[in-house]
Amino acid sequence: VGDSPATARVSVHVPPPRTAGYDVVIGAGLLHALPRLVAAAAPADRYAVIAPAPVAALYGEAVLDGLRTAGLHADLLSFPDGEQHKTRATWAALTDRMLEIGCGRGSAVIALGGGVAGDLAGFVAATYMRGVAVVQVPTTLLAMIDAAVGGKTAVDTDAGKNLVGVFHPPRVVIMDPVVLGTLPDDAIRAGLAEAVKHGVMLDATYFRWIEDNAEALLRRDTEALEHLVTRSVELKAAVVADDPFDSAGRAVLNFGHTVGHALEHDAGYTLDHGFAVAAGMVVEALAGEQLGVTEQGTAARIRRLLLQLGLPATPDLQRRPDHGAAAADRLVAAMRLDKKSRGRAVHCALPARIGTSARTSAPTGDRGWTHDVPDHVLLYALGRPAGTPEVV
Amino acid sequence: VGDSPATARVSVHVPPPRTAGYDVVIGAGLLHALPRLVAAAAPADRYAVIAPAPVAALYGEAVLDGLRTAGLHADLLSFPDGEQHKTRATWAALTDRMLEIGCGRGSAVIALGGGVAGDLAGFVAATYMRGVAVVQVPTTLLAMIDAAVGGKTAVDTDAGKNLVGVFHPPRVVIMDPVVLGTLPDDAIRAGLAEAVKHGVMLDATYFRWIEDNAEALLRRDTEALEHLVTRSVELKAAVVADDPFDSAGRAVLNFGHTVGHALEHDAGYTLDHGFAVAAGMVVEALAGEQLGVTEQGTAARIRRLLLQLGLPATPDLQRRPDHGAAAADRLVAAMRLDKKSRGRAVHCALPARIGTSARTSAPTGDRGWTHDVPDHVLLYALGRPAGTPEVV
Repeated sequence: VGDSPATARVSVHVPPPRTAGYDVVIGAGLLHALPRLVAAAAPADRYAVIAPAPVAALYGEAVLDGLRTAGLHADLLSFPDGEQHKTRATWAALTDRMLEIGCGRGSAVIALGGGVAGDLAGFVAATYMRGVAVVQVPTTLLAMIDAAVGGKTAVDTDAGKNLVGVFHPPRVVIMDPVVLGTLPDDAIRAGLAEAVKHGVMLDATYFRWIEDNAEALLRRDTEALEHLVTRSVELKAAVVADDPFDSAGRAVLNFGHTVGHALEHDAGYTLDHGFAVAAGMVVEALAGEQLGVTEQGTAARIRRLLLQLGLPATPDLQRRPDHGAAAADRLVAAMRLDKKSRGRAVHCALPARIGTSARTSAPTGDRGWTHDVPDHVLLYALGRPAGTPEVV
Repeated sequence: VGDSPATARVSVHVPPPRTAGYDVVIGAGLLHALPRLVAAAAPADRYAVIAPAPVAALYGEAVLDGLRTAGLHADLLSFPDGEQHKTRATWAALTDRMLEIGCGRGSAVIALGGGVAGDLAGFVAATYMRGVAVVQVPTTLLAMIDAAVGGKTAVDTDAGKNLVGVFHPPRVVIMDPVVLGTLPDDAIRAGLAEAVKHGVMLDATYFRWIEDNAEALLRRDTEALEHLVTRSVELKAAVVADDPFDSAGRAVLNFGHTVGHALEHDAGYTLDHGFAVAAGMVVEALAGEQLGVTEQGTAARIRRLLLQLGLPATPDLQRRPDHGAAAADRLVAAMRLDKKSRGRAVHCALPARIGTSARTSAPTGDRGWTHDVPDHVLLYALGRPAGTPEVV
């Protein structure tokens, strides 16, 4: 850039932030060690424990008592449960509450709950007096293996999910698999769907381990759940470290999500995210096989495991009166409107085979991590149950 | 921390952000080069130019035309002028407007206006889809030499100023001193007060240069203003680079602000910030002299220069019916409530002499960059005009 001779240029150097990383600590009964872990990783003059009302009712008093017994100053701030409350209004109310109780720049937030609590309380912490420390304490399986690692915070607007937020890495993430005992069965299954995704895209041995331990996982064997959480966190941590700001490589974690989001949207968000992703993985793997990107038989093997885990393995459009034609058209139209498709062809992150993601040689905006999928291939994959010979 | 044997630990590595720094470009007529500078430093598929209504009316069309002529996609988003609109509500409305016009993760914000525009539009950019690029184009003297450099973004709440925000460094800052020609006289003087502060705390030669060029600055000689902006930006850039997250060293920039904020607060924010800081600098320098921290005669020299620049050089409490006793008590009480005093003694950043800040040997929360000032010293400094022998 050739400036005029009269132009001055001053370079402002921005050194990297102080916090270079964080630990995820996983162990049965670890909720009891929370005060010690929090004091070590996020020393603060005051803690705001932010939790949705049902989680606050279950664990709030125990967590507060623990913190106070350890000599720490803590308050419990609860908010109404549900994605519909992950809004700027709830964020503002929680911020105002922290101001009222006297939290300052040296205070910290403890996010206690599922993915909504992590996203919302994380965004409160990120924007409170230009950022205070946050400790993530996920209490659902899905939040443990997905939302709590990676530093994403966000709230929704009327225009869509997660449209407002920042990256704000936690100081420490504390996961106690014992709390999974109080979850409904569907919430466990929804978490398992994301674990299957990690196996498909990143680790064949892990996928095989889930196949071999499906029964133990469904009856919530603590040791099995602990291994599942640990391995999924390890895999996600490696992906996040390669792509901290979600610009490219993190796209592998979107396997199943392009179709899954469309299914959620089409169901008016009455369909559970994990269930939508389960069906989405089978459809996308079928599309990958059709494109020659994914090894034949991959979709069938994913489908078999999902059924073992009690998860839906197809969108099941065929049962509708028109055999799914109108629904399939609607779904493809929804995918085209997705914020990540940027007006181009629908694109998906796809496996090459179980345990390995496929890169494309024609780099897209995701630098080769996603594949353009033509509409007719999507319609084909949506219209046929997995594993039938017609797909090949 | 000794975890139980069953505890697993996964370390998440967070690499530093891609953007390591940015340039501040200063030059008369540079607004015409804005499209070229923006395209080079912040390439984007779409630009949202965010400006307060009066600035939008003055420069909005010219900036839009320039961007569009250069083949860039740009829209103008204006908001009502004034600190009272630097709120979460205005932030949400601007965000929603960006969503409506189709801005995505590859779009960018251009903040065009004074300090309010920079803080507000910066916060919009920082939180839009977890952060899009922002270009700062300050149009007031105060914003050029203070707010636009340093990466701070924020909005106010009912509880106070700048309580919600994040650090979000701009991709480039563009300063065209020609736009200062349309400012009211008081706005120029308010900016000069902050420049005097830079001289007092960081550069004796610069302080002397302002003394020698006060008359040229007041008649808005372009060359003089350009030098002033450039030197103040250089000085602030060095401070910011040493303390990017405002945890310690940036405190030197708070000289005059502890008392200044209290004066603003006491006047119900009808007093201009720059004018409040001007009077605040004289009071704090007097307190410093009283404490033996600041060289005798420093307050008198600051006062002389401020008067030359048409700025208030005392809070002028003596003219009140009670000779300022009640007002001084109120001011000290307000300083104790300031978020930065954290419930301890009032503390101030102080000069050792003109051109050099004073560090204390008893490190406080600001690691020695600020000094505890006992109430009786503050009352004394507030109660006496600068330069009178009683102060010594």
